[in-house]
Amino acid sequence: MEVITSTANPRIKALSRLLERKEREREGRFLIEGAREIERAMRAGVELELILVRDGPLHPDEEALYRTLARAEGLRGLALAEAPLKKLSSRENPAGLIAVARLPRRSLADLTLPPDPLVLVGVGLEKPGNLGAILRCADAAGAHAVIAVGGVDLYGPQVIRNSTGVVFGLPTVAAPEGEVLAWLKARGLVLVAATPHAQRLYWDVDLRGPVAIAVGPEHEGLGPQWLEAAQLAVRIPMQGQADSLNVSVSAALLLYEALRQRRGRGM
Amino acid sequence: MEVITSTANPRIKALSRLLERKEREREGRFLIEGAREIERAMRAGVELELILVRDGPLHPDEEALYRTLARAEGLRGLALAEAPLKKLSSRENPAGLIAVARLPRRSLADLTLPPDPLVLVGVGLEKPGNLGAILRCADAAGAHAVIAVGGVDLYGPQVIRNSTGVVFGLPTVAAPEGEVLAWLKARGLVLVAATPHAQRLYWDVDLRGPVAIAVGPEHEGLGPQWLEAAQLAVRIPMQGQADSLNVSVSAALLLYEALRQRRGRGM
Repeated sequence: MEVITSTANPRIKALSRLLERKEREREGRFLIEGAREIERAMRAGVELELILVRDGPLHPDEEALYRTLARAEGLRGLALAEAPLKKLSSRENPAGLIAVARLPRRSLADLTLPPDPLVLVGVGLEKPGNLGAILRCADAAGAHAVIAVGGVDLYGPQVIRNSTGVVFGLPTVAAPEGEVLAWLKARGLVLVAATPHAQRLYWDVDLRGPVAIAVGPEHEGLGPQWLEAAQLAVRIPMQGQADSLNVSVSAALLLYEALRQRRGRGM
Repeated sequence: MEVITSTANPRIKALSRLLERKEREREGRFLIEGAREIERAMRAGVELELILVRDGPLHPDEEALYRTLARAEGLRGLALAEAPLKKLSSRENPAGLIAVARLPRRSLADLTLPPDPLVLVGVGLEKPGNLGAILRCADAAGAHAVIAVGGVDLYGPQVIRNSTGVVFGLPTVAAPEGEVLAWLKARGLVLVAATPHAQRLYWDVDLRGPVAIAVGPEHEGLGPQWLEAAQLAVRIPMQGQADSLNVSVSAALLLYEALRQRRGRGM
């Protein structure tokens, strides 16, 4: 197999542009770094195009996955020396495998929800690490969908990483505000806005029915259009010196409160 | 005021060593970056020795704080050009103020707790960002103390930053395992261990009495000495593809469950 050793190689240069959102959207392709992340993407039906592999020792999990992909499934492989691998990596210590994949195209119309769904809406989230952490805990709490409105790209390297790859298996959609608000209404979901200005605590509202919990960016919070559209506004009590919680912690508290209330219903 | 322009300046070199834990402990000094963090440290009685200020435009909050510190309180100041400031900073965009402070020396014996205290014990936490996030949510949830056993340094730059500076005001102590276990026993605290192997869900145990909730590192979890010493073991249910939650999310869920159970008691 061909080995690429230089970061100046035109294919490496072209692939490294996929680290930018604009280019991912233009090309409809993105990078998935790490064995666990690639496996979760495959299991979720994400289409892989090419597998980049370290020209050097691999972690046993990487070795096993590479054997499956390149040898058993005939996926095209390309070996990279450390320098070009580092150029495509988003980690301090690059993983031994990076996949090039087709960007999933999911819209609100694709979401199929059970009765009494639990949906999380992340509005204008600015930090990829936070969106990734929200996806990870939405998955753990058994949320049925996560919708991103504005903010960072669902398929950025840091989001994939912080989500530990659950972004692929969890029904996730990015959609504009107006569409999301119309969709929530059409689907009969009760919009619950998390805001420090609410009177009611999050423990005191019924989250057992069809609900969409909306969280906003840490400093500004949810905008007026969300607060006006919401049927319920809830607050997480804060006792200390600090004025806000990390948005992924807020999302986790709200989702697990819904899960607590839904216990014993076989959610 | 003197302006330092070179990163090779011996004072800058000496101060930059405070970015390492060993040197902080040897010298008994550490760095606090950012106006909010410095203010929270001052309010908590942390002793400042020197204030480093950008030789250039400051944020209005920084300007106001600098005026108080250097002019009103007579704290020694030192102006830095961008390069030496960057060398001492832990941020991508350095703050305009960095304080040099005396390392707080707090031991378990210093902790004064109310009746039915809520304590969080973080065991072997490897990521400074996680310890910082835990401190931030312990503060918000009204925990009475946070104890760090092994793991990263409470006064590392990333911990201070992710805690938004609440590390100073919250009673926090770093202590060795044996001492902490003996202290918990002597104080009559019920040790509650969070582990995925527990039978009982965290919603099903009484967290209203004097409790210390212990969380461990994400992959290995709490070691046998903690699981054996614990009077209660609890599990956070997980529904999805992922096998664990971020440790700061786990800590937040447990602390807020304690807060929920303690409602109306004027905690």
